[in-house]
Amino acid sequence: MLAYIDLTQPEERIMNQTIKLLRGHRSIRKFTDQPVPQALVNELVATGQAASTSSFIQGCSVVQVNRPEDRAKLAVWSGNQRYVEEAPVFLVFCADMKRHQLVCDMQGTEMLSGYAEQFITATVDCGLFAQNLMAAAESTGLGGCYIGGIRNQIAKVAALLDLPDLVYPVFGMCLGYPDQDPILRPRLPLEVVLKQDRYDDSGDRAAIADYDQRVKAYYLERSGGKRSMTWSEQMSGMLMKEIRPHMLEFLKKRGFLLR
Amino acid sequence: MLAYIDLTQPEERIMNQTIKLLRGHRSIRKFTDQPVPQALVNELVATGQAASTSSFIQGCSVVQVNRPEDRAKLAVWSGNQRYVEEAPVFLVFCADMKRHQLVCDMQGTEMLSGYAEQFITATVDCGLFAQNLMAAAESTGLGGCYIGGIRNQIAKVAALLDLPDLVYPVFGMCLGYPDQDPILRPRLPLEVVLKQDRYDDSGDRAAIADYDQRVKAYYLERSGGKRSMTWSEQMSGMLMKEIRPHMLEFLKKRGFLLR
Repeated sequence: MLAYIDLTQPEERIMNQTIKLLRGHRSIRKFTDQPVPQALVNELVATGQAASTSSFIQGCSVVQVNRPEDRAKLAVWSGNQRYVEEAPVFLVFCADMKRHQLVCDMQGTEMLSGYAEQFITATVDCGLFAQNLMAAAESTGLGGCYIGGIRNQIAKVAALLDLPDLVYPVFGMCLGYPDQDPILRPRLPLEVVLKQDRYDDSGDRAAIADYDQRVKAYYLERSGGKRSMTWSEQMSGMLMKEIRPHMLEFLKKRGFLLR
Repeated sequence: MLAYIDLTQPEERIMNQTIKLLRGHRSIRKFTDQPVPQALVNELVATGQAASTSSFIQGCSVVQVNRPEDRAKLAVWSGNQRYVEEAPVFLVFCADMKRHQLVCDMQGTEMLSGYAEQFITATVDCGLFAQNLMAAAESTGLGGCYIGGIRNQIAKVAALLDLPDLVYPVFGMCLGYPDQDPILRPRLPLEVVLKQDRYDDSGDRAAIADYDQRVKAYYLERSGGKRSMTWSEQMSGMLMKEIRPHMLEFLKKRGFLLR
């Protein structure tokens, strides 16, 4: 237990170090040349493992990608995100039910696979694991970003990393020592995200319209006046197009979401 | 940035406070009567929001369930987990694409929904959000546990909380001040979870057999000698049965995983 938040002073709230750290998260996409010792990467992965896991399934495996030629491919497939190539560390988080097939085999039982439920538990496990790892990394002075772009060419990524059936790459993560200091990106108002007792979104339209202006100001500041976009514009522009329409077919081929 | 891990002294490694905290996670299921101020809950939710979000979608909504009669129902539906009823705070984390439909509406565009990709991004967002929140909670002296059991009766939970289409309850979370001090549950060996460059599980069988003995010792200690089970036994026993087979149909009805 660290220092308690002093709730008696809401305006000069004393946040503890961990909460300060978590609140200060920005995606880091530019890194110094300083290498990250493998012993530290191992520590971070072990810290990821310490997160909760659904029914103790431990459904997350991590592939650390080191070879420059592999990184170059992943960077292109992710939509030309060159930090995938440049980051000192690149990790691919995989939802993994393969090792459960292995232990069922060891026990002489047959695993019933393909349930949407298993897809949820393994995917959630990856999220909890990765976020614990990211928090740990940031606490040591590292920075990083998630790379959902590896799902652009998910079949190629799976083939490159030799992922078997019942394993799918959920997202990547770049890690390294920050060579940039971006500003915080504003989040939705609390009242939009936190509901009491029932899901009631009757106030969301007005709250989001207000939030839109804050996002616009953020993009203006970040781009030095060149780019300006509200959250609503960004989301609606993105969601009126097909997004990775190959996903369901790929997942079914790999033994997920069959029933 | 907190204190750096001293990697020159692997045996007397100096972990920083945040990593110590994250490594020390145990699920807490028994709570004191000490209430959790709502201002603190709000802080924790705001800290959850600070986690990364896939393509900035912010696809997680939280319903805080306060009414005793609702808690009683959720506790039963989750498989008679009475801490769902007793915990000072109970949160339901929902993957939410409904608000994106709202902003598309505000922008006069039509959202293309139902893609497996959107299901992944919103579900992952809930994982990152919740784990940030859990870490923040633990840093203030709170403890808690995830409740995947709310998916046992997912349709009833969704109806109780008035969840609309394009919103599904991923998991719950109990929070409160710990009234127990359980031992750490051992995790899989690092070499099983972290692979270099390619997914290679040729060494996993032996490593898991060894791990199985550590899990057995853990259950013996936790149960005071009454319960003894390896990880392989636990997983194979669980996975030879159907697990929440209603899930895919429910999700499709709610507008997810349609294409």
